[in-house]
Amino acid sequence: MIDVCLAGTGGMLPLPNRWLTCFWLEYNGKAALIDCGEGTQITLAKHGCKLSRLDALLITHAHADHISGLAGLLLSLGNYGKTDALTIYGHEGISTVIEQLCCICPMLPFPLEVKELSETEISRFEWNGLEVQSLPLRHRIPCLGYSFMLHRKPVFNPQKAKALDIPMQFWKQLHAGETVTTQDAVYTQDMVTDEKRPPLKITYMTDTLYFKEMTGFAKDSDLLVCEGMYGDDAYLPKMQEKMHMVFSQTAELAKHSGAKQLWLTHYSPALTDPAEYAAAVQEIFTDTVVSVDGQRMTLR
Amino acid sequence: MIDVCLAGTGGMLPLPNRWLTCFWLEYNGKAALIDCGEGTQITLAKHGCKLSRLDALLITHAHADHISGLAGLLLSLGNYGKTDALTIYGHEGISTVIEQLCCICPMLPFPLEVKELSETEISRFEWNGLEVQSLPLRHRIPCLGYSFMLHRKPVFNPQKAKALDIPMQFWKQLHAGETVTTQDAVYTQDMVTDEKRPPLKITYMTDTLYFKEMTGFAKDSDLLVCEGMYGDDAYLPKMQEKMHMVFSQTAELAKHSGAKQLWLTHYSPALTDPAEYAAAVQEIFTDTVVSVDGQRMTLR
Repeated sequence: MIDVCLAGTGGMLPLPNRWLTCFWLEYNGKAALIDCGEGTQITLAKHGCKLSRLDALLITHAHADHISGLAGLLLSLGNYGKTDALTIYGHEGISTVIEQLCCICPMLPFPLEVKELSETEISRFEWNGLEVQSLPLRHRIPCLGYSFMLHRKPVFNPQKAKALDIPMQFWKQLHAGETVTTQDAVYTQDMVTDEKRPPLKITYMTDTLYFKEMTGFAKDSDLLVCEGMYGDDAYLPKMQEKMHMVFSQTAELAKHSGAKQLWLTHYSPALTDPAEYAAAVQEIFTDTVVSVDGQRMTLR
Repeated sequence: MIDVCLAGTGGMLPLPNRWLTCFWLEYNGKAALIDCGEGTQITLAKHGCKLSRLDALLITHAHADHISGLAGLLLSLGNYGKTDALTIYGHEGISTVIEQLCCICPMLPFPLEVKELSETEISRFEWNGLEVQSLPLRHRIPCLGYSFMLHRKPVFNPQKAKALDIPMQFWKQLHAGETVTTQDAVYTQDMVTDEKRPPLKITYMTDTLYFKEMTGFAKDSDLLVCEGMYGDDAYLPKMQEKMHMVFSQTAELAKHSGAKQLWLTHYSPALTDPAEYAAAVQEIFTDTVVSVDGQRMTLR
């Protein structure tokens, strides 16, 4: 079970009625946060995302609207009693940015472990029992998208195990994926389970212009959270120049990647009512949510 | 006429219902801002303080709750079309902090002019027709308090001028403070005016423990805005250790400095209802306001 909360949906600058985009993901008692612009710690508090659970911070890129809340967030983690390490993931060079921003919080009561990921190819790492991948996006500065995958064991099938005369003492090991070899036989997971289940997958991508590899990276996501600066296609040329996307592109991406649900985010401050474009975008991809701050979901 | 707005009243960390302390002062079409913690640009927008008028930023000190919103504020100034210089005042060494925090806003469309003020003695400078003074406070790191003074001409008294036979052609010059010397006489300002008027004075001091020089620095302020972390005197020893103040100390300071009005600010996040202490603190100094975010006043 993974709980997620899109605690903000804004791009560029925080507004009195819209926080900067940031994504909270909680699994098994620990949380990861993607991005921390100005005010992120406030909207997290407002939406019940408990900082005490924060274990990893993933930075997409070093534009202020995605990282300017870092020092405040770290100080608050300290105030809330954090003493174990916080791991910060980001692109190559992010350590220098973090070091500079932290000049106003030099005495944290917990260590920071910064891990730099490739700017040119997909990186893979494990966090809290989930597989995480990062994809270099195409923005004006280095920028990463992230996917979280919860790999699930296939469902156990006792009928199948009995029919194949598998000794009951091996069932648990076999279900867990181990192979058991006895004098008489070799037993494997598929002998006691139904067919494999795809992982639970959540993908988050901002800021970027659209490019083909995004579709593959987001493939079969249960939830795709992706940027859209404007609902009106008239902004497409301007957005391509600024290296951003419009809603229709994001919906096309969701459709072609086979996502189950799309949440739009990172709206321009000039887009006062994104919901106005909901119907149009749902014509391209039905399960599109024009997200609002605090959008929540539990994936089971 | 000076308009002021205390757009936030919080200390340490921004809360969903309380912004970090920051002070907006507008005179003659230009504005100065004291401090810019995380979220300051949001609360300014919320309370009608127009960023387009911002001409000077005064930093008290480099703790995150007073400066972590700097990069976001500067970027928003750029987005709002600022091209003329922004002057930033702060203590010695503030340039280095600003430079580091600005690593996420390297391409501003306007120049920054940073002016460092003494850490050991009162500095005086002119901003927008006002005299400004800075006082080194006593905190865990270098920290400055600020006073703004609008010097006013004495009121013109035509009866007095006529009674003294002052030629009408000199009245304007004399009222403006010039001395006029003719073959027959020397005319001075006091011959055409009533007695001198004290300047309009506004003083802002946070973060600090109380020390005697603060009373002199705040002397005769029309408005004194000063920190108070807690209303309960039981916190006094802890606050002295942390180099902060409690409400009763601030009220004593207001009383002894001859301030006309006191606004409390920089409440601890643990102090959920500062107004609870209003009556107690008003017994010490009647004109105490337990400020709320967006507290406004026009001084004439």
